[in-house]
Amino acid sequence: MLTNEGVLDAFGHVSMRHPHDPGRYLLSRSRSPGVIEPDDILEFTLDSEPVVPPNVQIYAERVIHGCIYEARPDVTAVVHHHAPAVMPFCIAGIPIVPVFHLGAAGGETQPFWNQRDEFGDTNLLVVKPEEGRSLARALGSHNAVLMVNHGATVVGGDLREMVSRAIFMCQNADYQLRAHMLGKVASLTPGETKLAGVINAMPTVTNRTWEYWTQRLARAGGLPPAVTKTAKARPRAASAKPAAARKTPAGKAKSQKAGRKSRRSR
Amino acid sequence: MLTNEGVLDAFGHVSMRHPHDPGRYLLSRSRSPGVIEPDDILEFTLDSEPVVPPNVQIYAERVIHGCIYEARPDVTAVVHHHAPAVMPFCIAGIPIVPVFHLGAAGGETQPFWNQRDEFGDTNLLVVKPEEGRSLARALGSHNAVLMVNHGATVVGGDLREMVSRAIFMCQNADYQLRAHMLGKVASLTPGETKLAGVINAMPTVTNRTWEYWTQRLARAGGLPPAVTKTAKARPRAASAKPAAARKTPAGKAKSQKAGRKSRRSR
Amino acid sequence: MLTNEGVLDAFGHVSMRHPHDPGRYLLSRSRSPGVIEPDDILEFTLDSEPVVPPNVQIYAERVIHGCIYEARPDVTAVVHHHAPAVMPFCIAGIPIVPVFHLGAAGGETQPFWNQRDEFGDTNLLVVKPEEGRSLARALGSHNAVLMVNHGATVVGGDLREMVSRAIFMCQNADYQLRAHMLGKVASLTPGETKLAGVINAMPTVTNRTWEYWTQRLARAGGLPPAVTKTAKARPRAASAKPAAARKTPAGKAKSQKAGRKSRRSR
Amino acid sequence: MLTNEGVLDAFGHVSMRHPHDPGRYLLSRSRSPGVIEPDDILEFTLDSEPVVPPNVQIYAERVIHGCIYEARPDVTAVVHHHAPAVMPFCIAGIPIVPVFHLGAAGGETQPFWNQRDEFGDTNLLVVKPEEGRSLARALGSHNAVLMVNHGATVVGGDLREMVSRAIFMCQNADYQLRAHMLGKVASLTPGETKLAGVINAMPTVTNRTWEYWTQRLARAGGLPPAVTKTAKARPRAASAKPAAARKTPAGKAKSQKAGRKSRRSR
Repeated sequence: MLTNEGVLDAFGHVSMRHPHDPGRYLLSRSRSPGVIEPDDILEFTLDSEPVVPPNVQIYAERVIHGCIYEARPDVTAVVHHHAPAVMPFCIAGIPIVPVFHLGAAGGETQPFWNQRDEFGDTNLLVVKPEEGRSLARALGSHNAVLMVNHGATVVGGDLREMVSRAIFMCQNADYQLRAHMLGKVASLTPGETKLAGVINAMPTVTNRTWEYWTQRLARAGGLPPAVTKTAKARPRAASAKPAAARKTPAGKAKSQKAGRKSRRSR
Repeated sequence: MLTNEGVLDAFGHVSMRHPHDPGRYLLSRSRSPGVIEPDDILEFTLDSEPVVPPNVQIYAERVIHGCIYEARPDVTAVVHHHAPAVMPFCIAGIPIVPVFHLGAAGGETQPFWNQRDEFGDTNLLVVKPEEGRSLARALGSHNAVLMVNHGATVVGGDLREMVSRAIFMCQNADYQLRAHMLGKVASLTPGETKLAGVINAMPTVTNRTWEYWTQRLARAGGLPPAVTKTAKARPRAASAKPAAARKTPAGKAKSQKAGRKSRRSR
Repeated sequence: MLTNEGVLDAFGHVSMRHPHDPGRYLLSRSRSPGVIEPDDILEFTLDSEPVVPPNVQIYAERVIHGCIYEARPDVTAVVHHHAPAVMPFCIAGIPIVPVFHLGAAGGETQPFWNQRDEFGDTNLLVVKPEEGRSLARALGSHNAVLMVNHGATVVGGDLREMVSRAIFMCQNADYQLRAHMLGKVASLTPGETKLAGVINAMPTVTNRTWEYWTQRLARAGGLPPAVTKTAKARPRAASAKPAAARKTPAGKAKSQKAGRKSRRSR
Repeated sequence: MLTNEGVLDAFGHVSMRHPHDPGRYLLSRSRSPGVIEPDDILEFTLDSEPVVPPNVQIYAERVIHGCIYEARPDVTAVVHHHAPAVMPFCIAGIPIVPVFHLGAAGGETQPFWNQRDEFGDTNLLVVKPEEGRSLARALGSHNAVLMVNHGATVVGGDLREMVSRAIFMCQNADYQLRAHMLGKVASLTPGETKLAGVINAMPTVTNRTWEYWTQRLARAGGLPPAVTKTAKARPRAASAKPAAARKTPAGKAKSQKAGRKSRRSR
């Protein structure tokens, strides 16, 4: 979904804190996010060691995830990306400010982190534990951190909040750049930012965004095979259902109608 | 169609005044416009209360529609959107001016409405009746209103006029931004704007635009299932026919064509 | 092809001088260029009257074509368009200059024509014969004319020259705009423009462009039905052949190999 | 792949030094790179003469390749392109500087070459041996050379390094342009550029990029027929495998599982 919406490309990675063990997190093997499959997901401890020794390549930058889960108990989902929309800001050193209500998802400000300040010349990859901890310190209690000449890392209280936050931050950055070209950037007030900052995580909103982004992903041919099979059996309308279906407790197979109802009652 | 042409995305909503009862309007349940289906359409009174108590989520911002239908008897179609093309203008506070003949569909000027002026810090969603009425007052007798740090609301005398107006306003905004980057923006004269302002609603023009945007929607896989079924039976050429078909003298309707007719009579 | 490459959209029209009668030209009925079919092509005299009274809507702006064919015996193909790439220049009044070798196809300069100068406030459509003649005078012996707040009209000695000229002019305008944003636009010298100006019409070049743009059109589902049927029978490689195939005299069915050879010998 | 990622279009060409004879190189017949097929590949000596007299059209600009292979024994892959992302820099004369870690693939600087300086007014095509040698001299020991008002030529130690370098240079140019619009362009330090400059050729990285770009190509319908056939037999997941499959020595058909393992061990 994040690949399809232009946040991720060949690079970047998405993780989740383990739903049953807050001392572990889930991250795929080293592979572009848009092509990973269920079997690619591996389990890591918070010091970013794989729980089971893998026979596959793993991401060099996984300390980004481990160090943030360690520092931020409230965070359950993390994405690190090089989205084209935020890169100009990471290069120009211009802060991204909330310029529309959904952009408030990023918070009032996103701090910059310059790897060079603490570690001198590197290849800019965040691979050492101390680099990961430094990045987590820069993130602090914010929703995202901009990495100079590199990209961004965005966190969320749950997966959907993080996903929509990352997408809205990109839209916000794009609109801000073009408003800048018109000569003036008016941002939300701190009060508006606070009030609007939670819209993206409201169930009435995530119901809409998740269904819409799922449909776009389905049309682009990007749904995982299992979901695609289901989707083909129920053309078009089906494209909106997988998200709800996945939330249904395992083993409790429901009729299509029931699944629909449960979605509405969210 | 508005989603496929880049006006709407996960958000925004489209309504129509009820064709038989000017005191009511039609709006879908809370869902991204690109995925709504016929069953999603609900009926509302002009004070934005659902005529039948719904068992589905409804849009929080429906007062935008009710208040405009109340204030503007000439309006029969409304879209509220956050199109990327207009957002920079809503952020920079720079007026959109007609820069090409089709852009004149927006009229000579579109007023700005800043929710903050009257309501202080909000989450920027237009949910209270008094917010809706304030927006309708700002719209006045114009064709559209720009909402600061939020988006735009566009109206039309009929559905097709509103759709093409919304699309052409986005094209106009995009061209204006890039002319601005070249250093100079020359707009139409008031006389030209008046004369060109009606082009987008001329039948010879809407025949062309409606057929073209329908074909693009069909190729993107976005036609509703019923229409898609018909389209598949007549590959390619089919996508282009509805518009022409509509010109065919009525009375030659047949079984399949009956369904078509109902669409035609809109 | 011009629609698929971003030159045309719902609007714009393409004509050819009649291959056997230079006093007539071929233009489709009033329909978006991307959806026209062979049966839509009508024949007009140079004063833009239909040779056979049509029972379909015809373009209001057909005088653009008739007046240019009248004034320019060397021209056998004309396109009028509102391409997003050239619109900012038509609005800012900044001349398009050749900034890369293929952009030289537009010539050293393209004059501006402002309908307002001679005809005052209009809806900017070119519908009267005197408006068409005024535009043709502004075009003079150039390859294209930029229409203020409206679009452009591009001509060619043959259809392929006109098509590639229109496409390269758009690429040139896009690159020029972005070089302008970098702060400096260096154009070709007059000598380079003259030497490079004919590249787009060289057979070795049109062979390549025509095959490539045809393949892109095929992948986008935009080939006419007859050609698509052929293309499906010969997957992928076939996508490049329709253009050549269409040139084969009707009734002279050739083997695939023969068709291939004939293309190479162009 | 380079066409699908926006580096090549109707024009540009890709060559490889002959794997068994460093005195020869492989280049397709004159055809858009996105449509070439295995049979189109021809063999040339380093003075750009075809080894076997061809009965097809060959690229006029092949001296670009021959002269670079002659001057640079370390180079085994060359692409010449007119990518939209680099064109504004070739027109404005503004150097591309590394603005993110992957952009360091281009090296600290890419020299400009202006054909006009040595050869006066030409049509800007590089066709004479002395033009090719002049370009190769300008390239020197760099990774790429920017050709004024024309395009760029990018080299690599192997095919994958060249492909990712060309793609990352385009991303870098795009980000740099937009950072420029924000008012400031901060580049990597020389030390960072050196350290990050090799990331794009690291096996852990090329595994990811090659799989991802292959999948995108597959979805766009651009894989060669043989590979497509295989891909269709193994939906979705398969899209990532052709690259690995192609590396498998001919005649050694392996099970799907085996193919997978071999990819991991890279």
